[in-house]
Amino acid sequence: MKRWEANVRKVVPYVPGEQPKETDIIKLNTNENPYPPSPMVLEALQNVKYEDLRLYPDPEISQLVHSIAADKGLDDNQVFVGVGSDDVLAMSFMTFFNSDKPVFFPDITYSFYDVWADLFHIKYETKALRDDFTIDVNDYKAPNGGIVIPNPNAPTGLEASSSAIESIIAANEDSIVIIDEAYVDFGARSVVSLIEKYDNLLVVQTFSKSRSMAGSRIGFAMGNAKLIKYLNDCKYSFNSYTMDRITMAVGQAAIEDVDYFNSTVADIISTREWVKDELDDLGFVFPDSSANFIFASHPDIAAAEIFEELKKRGIYVRYFNKPRIDNYLRITIGTDEQMGQLIEALKEIRSLKCHD
Amino acid sequence: MKRWEANVRKVVPYVPGEQPKETDIIKLNTNENPYPPSPMVLEALQNVKYEDLRLYPDPEISQLVHSIAADKGLDDNQVFVGVGSDDVLAMSFMTFFNSDKPVFFPDITYSFYDVWADLFHIKYETKALRDDFTIDVNDYKAPNGGIVIPNPNAPTGLEASSSAIESIIAANEDSIVIIDEAYVDFGARSVVSLIEKYDNLLVVQTFSKSRSMAGSRIGFAMGNAKLIKYLNDCKYSFNSYTMDRITMAVGQAAIEDVDYFNSTVADIISTREWVKDELDDLGFVFPDSSANFIFASHPDIAAAEIFEELKKRGIYVRYFNKPRIDNYLRITIGTDEQMGQLIEALKEIRSLKCHD
Repeated sequence: MKRWEANVRKVVPYVPGEQPKETDIIKLNTNENPYPPSPMVLEALQNVKYEDLRLYPDPEISQLVHSIAADKGLDDNQVFVGVGSDDVLAMSFMTFFNSDKPVFFPDITYSFYDVWADLFHIKYETKALRDDFTIDVNDYKAPNGGIVIPNPNAPTGLEASSSAIESIIAANEDSIVIIDEAYVDFGARSVVSLIEKYDNLLVVQTFSKSRSMAGSRIGFAMGNAKLIKYLNDCKYSFNSYTMDRITMAVGQAAIEDVDYFNSTVADIISTREWVKDELDDLGFVFPDSSANFIFASHPDIAAAEIFEELKKRGIYVRYFNKPRIDNYLRITIGTDEQMGQLIEALKEIRSLKCHD
Repeated sequence: MKRWEANVRKVVPYVPGEQPKETDIIKLNTNENPYPPSPMVLEALQNVKYEDLRLYPDPEISQLVHSIAADKGLDDNQVFVGVGSDDVLAMSFMTFFNSDKPVFFPDITYSFYDVWADLFHIKYETKALRDDFTIDVNDYKAPNGGIVIPNPNAPTGLEASSSAIESIIAANEDSIVIIDEAYVDFGARSVVSLIEKYDNLLVVQTFSKSRSMAGSRIGFAMGNAKLIKYLNDCKYSFNSYTMDRITMAVGQAAIEDVDYFNSTVADIISTREWVKDELDDLGFVFPDSSANFIFASHPDIAAAEIFEELKKRGIYVRYFNKPRIDNYLRITIGTDEQMGQLIEALKEIRSLKCHD
């Protein structure tokens, strides 16, 4: 080993879900939206002045910040925008989690939290979910250096009540509590209204799921103006110009088309509820999802086997080979047609594997 | 102060050059290219499938990486792509500069280096440039935790010889040496060919200046495959999907249009050489620039005054109120027409201020 290697920051990177290059598959593995972005996004794209790409973008991302703030009924200085919610969360870990006490998050959760903690040398402690995958709020009422909880949780899809979340925020006025609401738009309740009441609350959301814009990389955080200022200071110290001109323009179009957003979200919720019934009929068990995915297990067929069988049939879902969840599959909600094909495939796999 | 504030990472952020919202100005303050990007960028933009924005982008940025590698005669695993060269440099500081010895860089240089060092709690020592703004290579031959040198340097525009740079790289096999070549395409010599010889060398370049794409946020680093792997590991631990789909497509178009690149770069060099003559005639002094800007001082008129007078006339240049350089202006090379207007304005200011 060369001596310079001793000074390299060694990490075990986050492994994103497969992004297969084939296009003739049913892709239900990374919680993407099956519907295209708003037609206003297309219009915004067609109106981009390519000559202007020679100029730096607005480092304050002012117009997109303003459109998001307007949509959420907030002031512009209560909104921070980043390159996807992963960028927002990474920046938040770096900005707010600098205590010598450990940061708390659930043991079964978004698998990027421990990666960020390791990257920034942040101590952490995971808190075990109950057997039914619910959070025990009392776990989060011990001294800590910060808290991050996704609501609805991923990969379970389970929503904690606003009062449970509020009791955690209220019990931790000395540390920052991040509520990661990546999936909140699919029928769960946001705690964003609490940012006026609690100055230690940061709520993170994304355009990747409910706005059909995973390919554009837009996420945002909402909190009191002081928190947002601290976050921006760190962002400006890392990279002043994080968001390109085109993404700003298409992002603004996406957030302003409220009708399209409401209609596609309603479609996904309706498909999800129908899929729950079908999975139930097939003998699957799953926590009641408020997200755009269902986290399902079958008592008679191993999840790893179903995963492989689905893949053979060109259907990609997500399988995590991790303690407590290695017999579950996370299935993204696609279109009715895609989900129909999934259900047919599952029926086939069941008859193949269960000789009843 | 709330107790959570004690755990906030406190920073003094980098202050980017002004990005005025008016469009009827002559903007020579942030080293943007006066020419639009390649027409192939427009074509790529028109071919974007907006429906695909619903899908995550390729986390490996494979196609753009491949196009850059092909252009530079490298293997794909020798190239790392980030969101502008600031993102690449921030990630490199975080990945490679983790020693308890100080990182070295010049006292007069890109003003982001000390900001990154502070952000990541990296010790650093600046090494004073000589009075003529040249680097003393011997300053970089003491024990250190890493080295970063821009070549050509900014804001001076001065190029160090490849042999001087190589002697620094060769003398530091135990630490990573980053050569920041943001401005190299305007007639300076790159040391990228040395990455095969020295495994401690990382060369960083950008699309923002010579490819007219500051608004798109594309930067890249070149080094041996091991360095690039370490950099990618940290990137995947920070944000797996840093680059959006559209930027990848337009970036690829830009790097593949070699003729357009060569022709616009030649135009800027030719304008720069003519502007040097004009500034010389007006009594300005300046180091001989190899970049797309000139760092000029006038013996009889204070730089701060010229800055304000130019601004009144709608011409924005960059003024740094910092030790040793507070009587200089960094003037970006625009079109011949813009620079003609600048020269006329400077003549006017000179006759106003110098009662000869």
